[in-house]
Amino acid sequence: MAKYTIVLDAMGGDNAPLSSVLGAVSAISENSDIKIILTGDKEQIEACFKGVDVPAFDSNRLEIAHASQVIDVNETPTVAIKEKKDSSIVVGLNLLKENRAEAFVSAGNTGAVLTGGTLIVGRIKGVLRPALATLLPTKTGYVFLCDSGANVDSKPEFLVQFAKMGEIYMENVLKVEKPRVHLVNIGEEAEKGNVLTKEAYELLKNSNVNFCGNIEAREIMSGEADVIVCDGFVGNVILKHTEGLASTLMSIIKNELMSTTKSKIGALLAKGAFKNIRKKFDYKEIGGAPFLGLKQLVVKAHGSSDEKAIKSAINQAYTFISNNITKKIEEELGVTKEHDVK
Amino acid sequence: MAKYTIVLDAMGGDNAPLSSVLGAVSAISENSDIKIILTGDKEQIEACFKGVDVPAFDSNRLEIAHASQVIDVNETPTVAIKEKKDSSIVVGLNLLKENRAEAFVSAGNTGAVLTGGTLIVGRIKGVLRPALATLLPTKTGYVFLCDSGANVDSKPEFLVQFAKMGEIYMENVLKVEKPRVHLVNIGEEAEKGNVLTKEAYELLKNSNVNFCGNIEAREIMSGEADVIVCDGFVGNVILKHTEGLASTLMSIIKNELMSTTKSKIGALLAKGAFKNIRKKFDYKEIGGAPFLGLKQLVVKAHGSSDEKAIKSAINQAYTFISNNITKKIEEELGVTKEHDVK
Repeated sequence: MAKYTIVLDAMGGDNAPLSSVLGAVSAISENSDIKIILTGDKEQIEACFKGVDVPAFDSNRLEIAHASQVIDVNETPTVAIKEKKDSSIVVGLNLLKENRAEAFVSAGNTGAVLTGGTLIVGRIKGVLRPALATLLPTKTGYVFLCDSGANVDSKPEFLVQFAKMGEIYMENVLKVEKPRVHLVNIGEEAEKGNVLTKEAYELLKNSNVNFCGNIEAREIMSGEADVIVCDGFVGNVILKHTEGLASTLMSIIKNELMSTTKSKIGALLAKGAFKNIRKKFDYKEIGGAPFLGLKQLVVKAHGSSDEKAIKSAINQAYTFISNNITKKIEEELGVTKEHDVK
Repeated sequence: MAKYTIVLDAMGGDNAPLSSVLGAVSAISENSDIKIILTGDKEQIEACFKGVDVPAFDSNRLEIAHASQVIDVNETPTVAIKEKKDSSIVVGLNLLKENRAEAFVSAGNTGAVLTGGTLIVGRIKGVLRPALATLLPTKTGYVFLCDSGANVDSKPEFLVQFAKMGEIYMENVLKVEKPRVHLVNIGEEAEKGNVLTKEAYELLKNSNVNFCGNIEAREIMSGEADVIVCDGFVGNVILKHTEGLASTLMSIIKNELMSTTKSKIGALLAKGAFKNIRKKFDYKEIGGAPFLGLKQLVVKAHGSSDEKAIKSAINQAYTFISNNITKKIEEELGVTKEHDVK
């Protein structure tokens, strides 16, 4: 019998429901510890099993929870969560609330997943604001960016909690020993920054976080930090600029390489190298963005997720729940601790 | 006789004073409209002319204004400006104040240049906050990032002025017809953002700026914007992340290409293509960052500027002053207009 149940929003993302169905089948085939509940239109989901070659899988570990509605990417999150009670996102989050599953994964409307997560699943008592966090590739490995977009007007106390949650994640999910936590700032010196980062610096310095000081954006990719902490607006800019710049650079390189016969041959010979680079910056390999600080795990997968990306997000959710991350966050930030600043 | 006088901080930057001296000589040799005053240690500057092969130049258009002190990159700007009255930066800015020159260029301590510029040269009456602005390369050309680091706790009204100044710059210096101005935000929709950007959006919509809406960081490099406006903290993150990510990507690519014999040959054949890309992301070609909104022009050149970068910054200053940008900013934002929100 499967140890953990993960709910997957079958209707979320550009390639749903097929990518979700195939990702789910692939995940349970590789990992006998998990069972998956797909939320969404039963008929459409079942049609996926007929239309293409779905590999054989243990059907006892794949279930469908019918949901008649879909929250579109352009809908206003608060309104959609309130009005679409039978949407794949709300149905999925309710399964978490009722303790019928340990994690919820969705490639759908980010705002709806975050708002729904906070309203339906609820935050751990003591966590001031749940944070969305994303792994970014660096020269030497990965850095955990927290918050990457959930809280766009943060207070210094929030940043200290983002730091602690990031530390716990990197220690337990990526098995980084004593993660180096840095504050994103405009200079390395302690006195640099805006009102928010100056105050956050002082709080971090006096916290139990392994705080290693400020980091300038120039060094984010250098590999010197394991966790970088910032306000969600800044984090979102970093995340999306990374995506945009990497893709722009690759396209400029491609155009340049196609400009002469000599460089075209060069490009052909260097094909394998370019493939490795694209892989490094491929979100499909990385998984989704965990929404940290809720009573149960919610993972936001990339909107353009394919089967592979969905599987990565499910695997990531598995590592998270099998390592009891939520319980560890609760132990550190829960109301029994003094951290509870209101 | 030269039409314009540009003051150059001979002591600023990692390669000073040699880079400054050579950059100045190169600039005046190419442009008979300008005269340059070098500020700094007379003896050290004069030694530069002896040590290396300095090409012949019109010595009537190169002058030295002796300054016995240097403000180090690590010094606290406000303190340094106050205490080092005979530093190359303060001496240079005073020449501007006394109307003995039209522009000041420095590769030295950024904070000191900005603080000194504001305190000594002074801002145009009506400009709420002078803004540091930087040109970033895009897929199709350049985008003007304003503010890129001077104001790290901006108010919505500041952003409207940054937008106007950016528009004037792009129209007159880069000759972009009707520059498209965008607000950096976490989503394209009008209602997206933090407190600052939501308010700034409304103000921009109702201003005389050619405001084209929000832009997500993912699209900064796409070429869809000519001017992007944001708080200086966010702008600094964008600027430095661009530098860091471009350099990381190029180094990852280099390592990958060196990993097999086949890809090594490929790299050799594609050498020219890579050179072009590096050139595109080379700040040395772009020049410095103008500090917009002061009574006279102050340009901050990159700290690691070499001769070529210094020359680019001088050329940029020349285009700025010969196009009367300061006067144009004054006409738009000066106290005679209604824009003056305190």
